[in-house]
Amino acid sequence: MRLSRYFMPILKENPKEAEIVSHRLMLRAGMIRQQSQGIYSWLPLGKRILDKVNRIIREEQDRSGAIELLMPTLQSAELWQESGRYDDYGKEMLRIKDRQERPLLYGPTNEEMITDIFRSYIKSYKNLPLNLYHIQLKFRDEIRPRFGTMRSREFLMKDAYSFDLTQQDAIHSYNKMFVAYLRTFARLGLRAIPMRADTGPIGGNHSHEFIILAETGESEVFSHKDFVNFEIPSEDTDFDDIAGLQAIFDKWTSLYAATSEMHDAAAFDAIPESDRLSARGIEVGHIFYFGTKYSEPMGAKVQGPDGKEHPVHMGSYGIGPTRLVPAIIEASHDENGIIWPASVAPFDVVVINMKPGDEACDRLSENLYAGLGKADKDVLYDDTDDRAGTKFATADLIGVPVQVIIGPRSAANGEVEVKDRKTGAREVMTLEAAMNRLAG
Amino acid sequence: MRLSRYFMPILKENPKEAEIVSHRLMLRAGMIRQQSQGIYSWLPLGKRILDKVNRIIREEQDRSGAIELLMPTLQSAELWQESGRYDDYGKEMLRIKDRQERPLLYGPTNEEMITDIFRSYIKSYKNLPLNLYHIQLKFRDEIRPRFGTMRSREFLMKDAYSFDLTQQDAIHSYNKMFVAYLRTFARLGLRAIPMRADTGPIGGNHSHEFIILAETGESEVFSHKDFVNFEIPSEDTDFDDIAGLQAIFDKWTSLYAATSEMHDAAAFDAIPESDRLSARGIEVGHIFYFGTKYSEPMGAKVQGPDGKEHPVHMGSYGIGPTRLVPAIIEASHDENGIIWPASVAPFDVVVINMKPGDEACDRLSENLYAGLGKADKDVLYDDTDDRAGTKFATADLIGVPVQVIIGPRSAANGEVEVKDRKTGAREVMTLEAAMNRLAG
Repeated sequence: MRLSRYFMPILKENPKEAEIVSHRLMLRAGMIRQQSQGIYSWLPLGKRILDKVNRIIREEQDRSGAIELLMPTLQSAELWQESGRYDDYGKEMLRIKDRQERPLLYGPTNEEMITDIFRSYIKSYKNLPLNLYHIQLKFRDEIRPRFGTMRSREFLMKDAYSFDLTQQDAIHSYNKMFVAYLRTFARLGLRAIPMRADTGPIGGNHSHEFIILAETGESEVFSHKDFVNFEIPSEDTDFDDIAGLQAIFDKWTSLYAATSEMHDAAAFDAIPESDRLSARGIEVGHIFYFGTKYSEPMGAKVQGPDGKEHPVHMGSYGIGPTRLVPAIIEASHDENGIIWPASVAPFDVVVINMKPGDEACDRLSENLYAGLGKADKDVLYDDTDDRAGTKFATADLIGVPVQVIIGPRSAANGEVEVKDRKTGAREVMTLEAAMNRLAG
Repeated sequence: MRLSRYFMPILKENPKEAEIVSHRLMLRAGMIRQQSQGIYSWLPLGKRILDKVNRIIREEQDRSGAIELLMPTLQSAELWQESGRYDDYGKEMLRIKDRQERPLLYGPTNEEMITDIFRSYIKSYKNLPLNLYHIQLKFRDEIRPRFGTMRSREFLMKDAYSFDLTQQDAIHSYNKMFVAYLRTFARLGLRAIPMRADTGPIGGNHSHEFIILAETGESEVFSHKDFVNFEIPSEDTDFDDIAGLQAIFDKWTSLYAATSEMHDAAAFDAIPESDRLSARGIEVGHIFYFGTKYSEPMGAKVQGPDGKEHPVHMGSYGIGPTRLVPAIIEASHDENGIIWPASVAPFDVVVINMKPGDEACDRLSENLYAGLGKADKDVLYDDTDDRAGTKFATADLIGVPVQVIIGPRSAANGEVEVKDRKTGAREVMTLEAAMNRLAG
C-alpha cells in the first residue's frame, strides 16, 4: 500500500477525551473514529488489525472443531420471553419497534437464538457434540461507555455455543474452548491467565475469565506468578483426547488465580510471598458451562441412547475482538507509539523513502516494495513528501514491526537501514540482504 | 470437513413459504434460517458461500484502489438531519431511541457517515482521489420482505464512496467502479449487463444498475443481445489509465440496455429483431455519481490548487452479497439442486464414502480427504451412515462442483468415480489419477 494513496489520518495532538493509552494511540494512529457515544468506525488501519485478530480467533475455533455461522444482529423479543431474560436484562438491552410495531432488540448475546436454531434441527444425540460460533456485532447500552473500543456500546464478539448430551461431555467441550482460548491469546502476543469466575445462580466451578495483566485494567487480580511461564498447548493438540485436554485444564487451574470478586485472601496469603502476583487485569475472554439453563425452558432436547428425550447441556464462550485490539496495545507500546506483535501487525514492513524524487531512493524503495509484495508480505510504502521527522514518528506510532529506511546517501551505495520497532536496533545492509531477510 | 461432525441441516420437503427456486434451495440445503420476518441466520454452508462472495468483492474493490474500513450499523439521527434525509426516508428507516432517549437509526446506507468521516480529516485536493468502502449490515424495514435473502430487511451491503475534486475526476472514479463491478460479477460466474438507471433529481447519465438475467427477476429488462458476449476487462487492467477505462465504459454502454423504468420502446424497436433481448432481470449492483449532493449541505470541502475551497464530487457504489448468493442460484441450478460456480462453491470437492466401515472404502476416502486437504482444497467428506440415495441427493442439492464416489466394488480395485455436478459426466479412475486431477 502506497501511503500517498492510503487513508490513515494521523493526529498530531493527543486527543483530550482519551483517558487510557490504547484509546489515545488508536485515535492518534487513525485506527478508529467515534461516530456516536460508544459507537466507532474502524478506519482502514484499524480494520486491517481487526481482520488479523479475527482470523486468528477463527483458526483456533476451527481447529478445536467449532463451526462458524452468522446470526443476525436483530432478534425478536419473543425468543427472550421464552428464556425469561427479556424482562431481566434491563436497560442495557436496546429495544426496538419495527414499522409493524413488533418488538425487536439488538442482540447483546445469542444464547436464545442459537438454542432456537439447535432445537429446530437437532433431534438425536448422534449429532452431538456440536459447537457453533459466529463473529458478529452486539449492542449493549452501557450507561458509561468509555476507553474507546475497550468498552463500547456497539462491539464485535466471537461467541461460541456448545451442545452435549451429558454434563461429562459438556466438560470436554468446555476444555476444548479453554485450550483454544489459551492458544488464541498466545498467538495474539498476549499472556492470558484463566481465572475462576463467578457463575452466579448456576453454580459449578466451570466458568473462567481470561485476564491479561495491564496497569489500566478495570479489575484487580491475584495469582500465582508461575502462570506467566506455563507452556501453551501446541498446534498439534488432539482435541478429541479427553484425558489430554483435561490434563491441560487441570494444570492451568492448579495454582491460585482470581479476580477481586472471587478473591480468597487466606488462600492467596498461603502462597509464598515471592510467588504472589497482585496486579490489574483486562478481561479478554469469558467461558461458561451453564447446563440446561436455556435448553430446559426452550425445549432444546435430543433423544439419548436410552430412547428418552434429554435437554442438552450447553456452554457459551466469548471473546471480544474490538476489545482485544486495545488490550494488545495496553500490553505492547512505548512512549513513541504502538508495538504490534507480528501476528496482528497491520503491515509486516514499512518502507520509508526519505527523498521521493531522488533516483536511487525511488529505485531501491520501489524494488523493495514490489519484491516484498511478491513474497506475499503486507508492505506500507511511505512515498509521501513529508519531513523525515514526520515519517519516523508515523512509523513508530503505527507500530509496524520492521521499518526499512531508504535515504539518498546510503541508497547511492545500494544500501538501506533496517530498524526493529520493538528494540530500536538499526542495521545498514544491501537491498538484497534486506530483501532476503524480510521476504522469508 | 467431515459431514458427521458438520452442521448442515438438509430439509427433505420443499418449504411452503418459498416462492422462488433460490429461496427453496437455500432452505433445503440448510444454508439459511429465517429468525424473524426478513431477518436470517446464515448457517455454516451458507456462511462459507457468503465468505467466498465477499472475498471476490473485496479483491476487486482493492484492485481498483478502493480502501476498506468498517463503519458501525447504528448511526445518530443528527447526521441525517444535516443532509435532510432523516425526514425523507420514511418508514423504511428503523428508528431507535437509546437509554438516554437519544435518537439513533440502523443505517440503511452510509452516505452521511462517510461524508462526516471525510470532512473530519481531508482538507486538501492532494489527498484525492479517495474511495472508501465497507461490507457491513444494513437494515431497511421493507413493508414486504420476501424471497429469502433476495429481499430481506437485515442484509449485507458492500458500499463504496468516492471523493474527487472535479466532476471530470469523479467520472474516472465512477469508471473504476464500473470496471470493478464487471470483473466482480464475472468472477462470481454471472453475466451482468450494466443498464442506465434513473438518477432522480440529480440528473446526468451516470447511474447504472447491473442486471443479471433470470426468470424470477423482479424487473423487466430490454437489451441488445451482444452484451452477452462482451469481453470482461482483464485482471491486468490499469485503473489509473483514464482513457483506457473510459473506452471500456463506452463500449459497455454503446448498445441499448434499459430496465422498464428507463425503457425507450422506439429505440429498442430500432434494433434488428434478432438482436433484441427482452427478459426479466435481478439487480445485483447499483452505482451512482451524485456530485455535491451531500458534500454541499454537510460542508465536505477541500482546498483546490487554486487555494479556494470546493465541495467534493462524490459517488456511491453498492453490491448486496446476501442478495448475490440467491441471484447466483437463480442463474445456476437444475432440478436436483444448486450448481455453484467453482469460485464461490462452499467446497471444491465432496468425497462420498458409500460404505463407511468397509476397509477399502475407508482407506481410499481418508487418503483422498487428507491428500486434497494438504493441497489446500476445501473438501467435504461424507462419512455418514446415510443411504446411498440420500448421499447422492445431498451432494447434488448442495451443488459442490465435483463429487468423488467411493463404493466397495471399485475401491477394492483402488478405483473411484469422479462426477461433474454440472454436466453429470462420470468417470472411473484410480485414486492417484483422481488426486492428480483434483489437487491441481
